[in-house]
Amino acid sequence: MAREEVTVALLGGGTVGTSVVELLTEHAEDFRERIGAPVRLTAVAVRDAGKARPGIPSELITDDAVAVASSGVDIVVELMGGIEPARECILAAMAAGSSVVTANKALLAEDGARLFKAAEQHEVDLSFEASVAGAIPLLRPLRESLAGDRVRKVMGIVNGTTNFMLTKMDEEGVEYADVFAEADALGYLESDPSLDVDGHDAAAKAAILAELAFHTRVTLADVHVEGIADVTADDMAAARDMGFVIKLLAIAEKIDGSEDSGVIVRVHPTMLPRTHPLAAVRESFNAVFVEADAAGQLMFYGRGAGGHPTASAVLGDLVAAARNRVSGSRGPGESTYTALPVLPIGRAYTEYYVNLDVADRPGVLASVATAFAENGVSIQVVHQEGHGDDAGLVVRTHLATDAALEATVEQLRGLDTVRRVVGVMRVEGDEQP
Amino acid sequence: MAREEVTVALLGGGTVGTSVVELLTEHAEDFRERIGAPVRLTAVAVRDAGKARPGIPSELITDDAVAVASSGVDIVVELMGGIEPARECILAAMAAGSSVVTANKALLAEDGARLFKAAEQHEVDLSFEASVAGAIPLLRPLRESLAGDRVRKVMGIVNGTTNFMLTKMDEEGVEYADVFAEADALGYLESDPSLDVDGHDAAAKAAILAELAFHTRVTLADVHVEGIADVTADDMAAARDMGFVIKLLAIAEKIDGSEDSGVIVRVHPTMLPRTHPLAAVRESFNAVFVEADAAGQLMFYGRGAGGHPTASAVLGDLVAAARNRVSGSRGPGESTYTALPVLPIGRAYTEYYVNLDVADRPGVLASVATAFAENGVSIQVVHQEGHGDDAGLVVRTHLATDAALEATVEQLRGLDTVRRVVGVMRVEGDEQP
Repeated sequence: MAREEVTVALLGGGTVGTSVVELLTEHAEDFRERIGAPVRLTAVAVRDAGKARPGIPSELITDDAVAVASSGVDIVVELMGGIEPARECILAAMAAGSSVVTANKALLAEDGARLFKAAEQHEVDLSFEASVAGAIPLLRPLRESLAGDRVRKVMGIVNGTTNFMLTKMDEEGVEYADVFAEADALGYLESDPSLDVDGHDAAAKAAILAELAFHTRVTLADVHVEGIADVTADDMAAARDMGFVIKLLAIAEKIDGSEDSGVIVRVHPTMLPRTHPLAAVRESFNAVFVEADAAGQLMFYGRGAGGHPTASAVLGDLVAAARNRVSGSRGPGESTYTALPVLPIGRAYTEYYVNLDVADRPGVLASVATAFAENGVSIQVVHQEGHGDDAGLVVRTHLATDAALEATVEQLRGLDTVRRVVGVMRVEGDEQP
Repeated sequence: MAREEVTVALLGGGTVGTSVVELLTEHAEDFRERIGAPVRLTAVAVRDAGKARPGIPSELITDDAVAVASSGVDIVVELMGGIEPARECILAAMAAGSSVVTANKALLAEDGARLFKAAEQHEVDLSFEASVAGAIPLLRPLRESLAGDRVRKVMGIVNGTTNFMLTKMDEEGVEYADVFAEADALGYLESDPSLDVDGHDAAAKAAILAELAFHTRVTLADVHVEGIADVTADDMAAARDMGFVIKLLAIAEKIDGSEDSGVIVRVHPTMLPRTHPLAAVRESFNAVFVEADAAGQLMFYGRGAGGHPTASAVLGDLVAAARNRVSGSRGPGESTYTALPVLPIGRAYTEYYVNLDVADRPGVLASVATAFAENGVSIQVVHQEGHGDDAGLVVRTHLATDAALEATVEQLRGLDTVRRVVGVMRVEGDEQP
């Protein structure tokens, strides 16, 4: 028997929620055709029910999110963000038999396992395309299109605000403090700017990507995080001189060790060759680069945030969940069968760029080169710059473990020929391990 | 009750088929976990059963494709290519209750409706991710991730061979005949090179993309096709001077007219600004740019051909079809509810680049400008070059209908001030209609 309708309730009436309501209304006929039944929006739960919300029918608005979540509709769309009450609402929705579509990266990265378990127990769908890289279809390709392949590495620009800031620093030569002030004035920063600039937002997304890519459980606490606050105009200029650009990358990779295998997930400023596809991703755009055994190199590019782009991803999930309701089936659930351990960043293979302020006297290069050699790190390029009080060395290494590179830098700091370690940054996208 | 196994039969033992068998064998445990049951390969049908095929177990090989197709396995993978006997085999497979995974762009573009209808009738899945842009997850995102959005335009580099040729012409300044010889020597060309260089391969893919993007039926015969054989080193140089690059693009777009709406699907050499994301797609890589109402601009990039990349797409489809078998459900079928007419290319809005060999005398520019004006086409840039016998005019227009631009060029050919129309090419990726 054909279904008469698919009922949907919305938790959250902000920018994305309003876009979702607008698109569901404007394109109602498309949704009916694509799903096989019309969608009926039953309620929109907001924090302040008294606030005027153009675009959302006032009779649907309520401030009782838990009641809306528990109402037993076909699909609950959670756009509140944050840990609570979002978690309570999602669990209540699933317990009431509703499939859930969410954009909540923080909750998924912190406690995704509990949500997946509840979805399994109540036999409902849990989908979250909008949680990473906004409009870019990325999680479905990872979960489904690449289901017959083995992903080796995922490397992406997944925070638009910091990419905007780094693009400005690169193209206009300005300092971090200035672009921070500009991003703040433009309203680009989260209310807690640390989520953007210290890499925590990107880290939550990295955890979600890693779990899907490697079929193993990864949480926010597993991610090594470094933000962009220490990136200087000097680093940018040095990168440019070497044909590189600096991006904040979320990187998840699988390490196949002779004794142990595992995944490493990390977020940090990274130098990329300007010829790398990710290097051309400017302003607030997002892009994710995927390396898979059979597929080779893939890239997905688009808008990472904004009301309509994020709503596009939410509605794609909504159509899939609704189709499953109509046909009585379910999408893929959590897949963590590989149960790989998360390894420390010291195990990652990477290259370093090291910028040193050195004494201007014979033997400096020899002592620096010895420090690298003693840690088993080989040098790819050395530039000697200036002399006297301005004497500098810029070193780019070959691939080595992060632990060896870190130890090298420690040793360099102790040399009396090295006045100061001016800059250290990881380099990606060049050599293959 | 859990399923004991999922049975798969393969039609075609070429490069892609061999990769499929290898990956199914090597990663058997992954497939079992991701599907929920082990995959068992029952047979591989090849044209010449006597030929040695390393990587394919000899006991599975047979030359009776129709028998294999009709064997009633869960999933038949068709990698024979061409119209017949592929069509007969696919229809036989569906009639026997098998879901079908195919990479056959030619058959889908020529007679897809019949295949979709048979899939519907026999309640099986028909999936074909590998038919367009090889390893790039593209059809699933269009069909599913963007199911809650409205696609306006799809524009892609979907033929790796011609992109390789045009990249060489751009970067090395060589003529078409030379890169054709090089591509031929490297074995990059189809056995009928016209499929590549005259745009027919790209046209089949454009038809498939257009149908999915706009939920309307589009066949190969609906696609306006122009190949790259007339692209000259002069065109390349002129493009470079203007900050453009020439790519063979497959373009599918929706036109919302005041009186009638419809889709236009076209394949032709196109000038793109070097800042456009597609401009950086070099060598044999593929990439598809999508513009959707809510999502905005998206791009998908990766390898468009090759055994392992294509096998990755085939196996992603295979896992999805197998999961559906295990859960007793089906993926989305054909969606053609918009039933939009296909409009002639004359209705498309585009810009033209026109390169004219002109008489070197006063009044030439005025007569040329008048021809544009009389057709309602406004000029964006004119360069006057050389003088005497070498006098030339390079014109770039603003957006106009292709019909008006075509009429302008016709009129220019009739002017006695114009000695020869040296080059005409459409320009994309710049202005918005």
